[in-house]
Amino acid sequence: MNFNIATIPGDGIGPDIIEQTVLVLNKIGEKFGHTFNFTEVLAGGAAIDATGEPLPQETIDICKKSDSVLLGAVGGPKWDNLPGDRRPEKALLGLRGELGLFANLRPALLHRALKDACPLKPEIIGDGLDILVVRELTGGIYFGERGRRNGKFGEEAYDTETYSVHEVERIARVGFESAMKRNKKVTSVDKANILESSRLWRSVVEKVAKDYPEVELNHMYVDNAAMQLVRNPKQFDVIITSNMFGDILSDEASMITGSIGMLPSASLGEGTLGMYEPIHGSAPDIAGQDKANPIATILSAAMMLRYSFNLEKEADCIEEAVTKVLEQNYRTGDIMSDGMKLVGTREMGKLIIDAL
Amino acid sequence: MNFNIATIPGDGIGPDIIEQTVLVLNKIGEKFGHTFNFTEVLAGGAAIDATGEPLPQETIDICKKSDSVLLGAVGGPKWDNLPGDRRPEKALLGLRGELGLFANLRPALLHRALKDACPLKPEIIGDGLDILVVRELTGGIYFGERGRRNGKFGEEAYDTETYSVHEVERIARVGFESAMKRNKKVTSVDKANILESSRLWRSVVEKVAKDYPEVELNHMYVDNAAMQLVRNPKQFDVIITSNMFGDILSDEASMITGSIGMLPSASLGEGTLGMYEPIHGSAPDIAGQDKANPIATILSAAMMLRYSFNLEKEADCIEEAVTKVLEQNYRTGDIMSDGMKLVGTREMGKLIIDAL
Ligand SMILES: CC(C)[C@H](C(=O)O)[C@@H](O)C(=O)O
Ligand SMILES: CC(C)[C@H](C(=O)O)[C@@H](O)C(=O)O
Repeated sequence: MNFNIATIPGDGIGPDIIEQTVLVLNKIGEKFGHTFNFTEVLAGGAAIDATGEPLPQETIDICKKSDSVLLGAVGGPKWDNLPGDRRPEKALLGLRGELGLFANLRPALLHRALKDACPLKPEIIGDGLDILVVRELTGGIYFGERGRRNGKFGEEAYDTETYSVHEVERIARVGFESAMKRNKKVTSVDKANILESSRLWRSVVEKVAKDYPEVELNHMYVDNAAMQLVRNPKQFDVIITSNMFGDILSDEASMITGSIGMLPSASLGEGTLGMYEPIHGSAPDIAGQDKANPIATILSAAMMLRYSFNLEKEADCIEEAVTKVLEQNYRTGDIMSDGMKLVGTREMGKLIIDAL
Repeated sequence: MNFNIATIPGDGIGPDIIEQTVLVLNKIGEKFGHTFNFTEVLAGGAAIDATGEPLPQETIDICKKSDSVLLGAVGGPKWDNLPGDRRPEKALLGLRGELGLFANLRPALLHRALKDACPLKPEIIGDGLDILVVRELTGGIYFGERGRRNGKFGEEAYDTETYSVHEVERIARVGFESAMKRNKKVTSVDKANILESSRLWRSVVEKVAKDYPEVELNHMYVDNAAMQLVRNPKQFDVIITSNMFGDILSDEASMITGSIGMLPSASLGEGTLGMYEPIHGSAPDIAGQDKANPIATILSAAMMLRYSFNLEKEADCIEEAVTKVLEQNYRTGDIMSDGMKLVGTREMGKLIIDAL
């Protein structure tokens, strides 16, 4: 089969990790008889430097016409002092909105080989961790009305958290469908004791749950969820939550695995078009030095094969290759520990390709 | 001196822990020559059962006329199915609003004697942890306009996060003043890359910081803060943040100490009137069984002596007594571990009184 992939190397280590991921995909294409056509486009700081805009219209157009988007990382101190809507992050929000990517899937997976990197005690983490955070990505306080006005105490700023029945229903479905392929447990996180949007969220989730009688559903307040992730993260299978709470909890969950350089993500919409990216940042301090860990991006490509192209076997193949290389004790600097073999970005890419 | 304290035992274990705390305060009064007059009032589930309302007007009136309020815990499954504004939690929000308690001080302190309870690895936690979360408590999305309406996708619910310059300024001052008495470091947590209210927050915090040149200020996004609390909590001294982010992060920070039954809190306003309560819940499953840990409430009383009554020596005396009893290896069930001596609520109260 033939697939068109828009690549956005972006900033910092973005180009380093995308380079290796493209090589991995090419090898998968060779092995399984697919052709991946890559079109590189600009977004983030790189786009600001080249065009003055974090998300040029051309990038949006090419992404929309592609079968999927593979993104490295955007942002860096160089662009930190630009005004809010001119900053690199604007590209992420713009792409999510323009491409209708309402479901952000963020697995927090602790690989057995990296167990020691986990900041929690071994009694808590046991032999690993496997949580999937399903975060709503095009609604809530990220996309609601905001501004300044004069209030009873003088100048004030406001932001609006909004959720419609439709928006909650579709993200809840993604959560329950994901749970059906995993351990059939959904924890819906909200703040229904305070927020009206959470009360709507909760009631819609309950309604959707009726279509998945095999899935065990429970509700948890966000403050409690932030605690439970530390106290007993193994109680979770799939977490579904709003854009803002998902931003916080998915980062907390990732950190609990202790290996952020390993974690991929997928952002999906109604169709098969998706955007895939590592959850780590652009790490400008090590950019271009062959030091970055390409695994999170390579695993993001595996998610792309699975979710956008329906190539399950090929996705498994990448994931198994990564596991194999880790078990052979190869490590990039970010996941290095005593007795392991330190390798650079390119060497790690090559090892994974050889293991495919 | 003579002080009037309104006590709100509330629900679940509330009465058990307030009973011991009153005894501790009486002993402090005896020892240092003060008189504490206690007036017990109703709030939460107990108030719903007695009057139909979670926060009767009489309770508000008595609290307003008191020098401080001491609260046990409110809520429980019995009242969980009541509509939002009839629930026990409404009492907390009502008291915060009515008494103008805009600053919530939540220390996350890991006592040396309880180091092993910490869920994080010893390499991360070292010889303890001492963070103060200063949470804004009467503004933000907790108190903004909310409701239902018809939007472009049909029925939707909304909540408004609002912050005025005035509200941010006063909470920032509490944060910087607290830092001056501690390690002179403030981390202001926001989501300024998305929220307008966070951009206002950040700029006001920067302005207030100019009055505290000795304090080191840094800004952190809330998603990153949720990660850093797990990765390296010792980097924090004072965290200042909004009502919603503070709700999440202060609970996460408490859980990182591993001993929620130990953690007090203070809610303060412009004057000296404050409300003091443990951060743990009402634990209805062990209510009235002499099993609850009264320490968090007793330490809340110490905060009351310090912040509302300016009785520094007396506050220290309580805190030292608690430390002594822990070092003598006495433990309630929630903090019990191998080789320690298990005691009940009353015995723990008595031990602390003896140690005063
Ligand atoms: C960069 C920022 C706008 C973004 C977000 O908050 O969504 C990031 O934290 C993420 O989680 O992808
Ligand atoms: C009970 C609830 C309304 C409350 C809050 O969210 O403020 C609680 O979580 C707290 O932190 O005191």
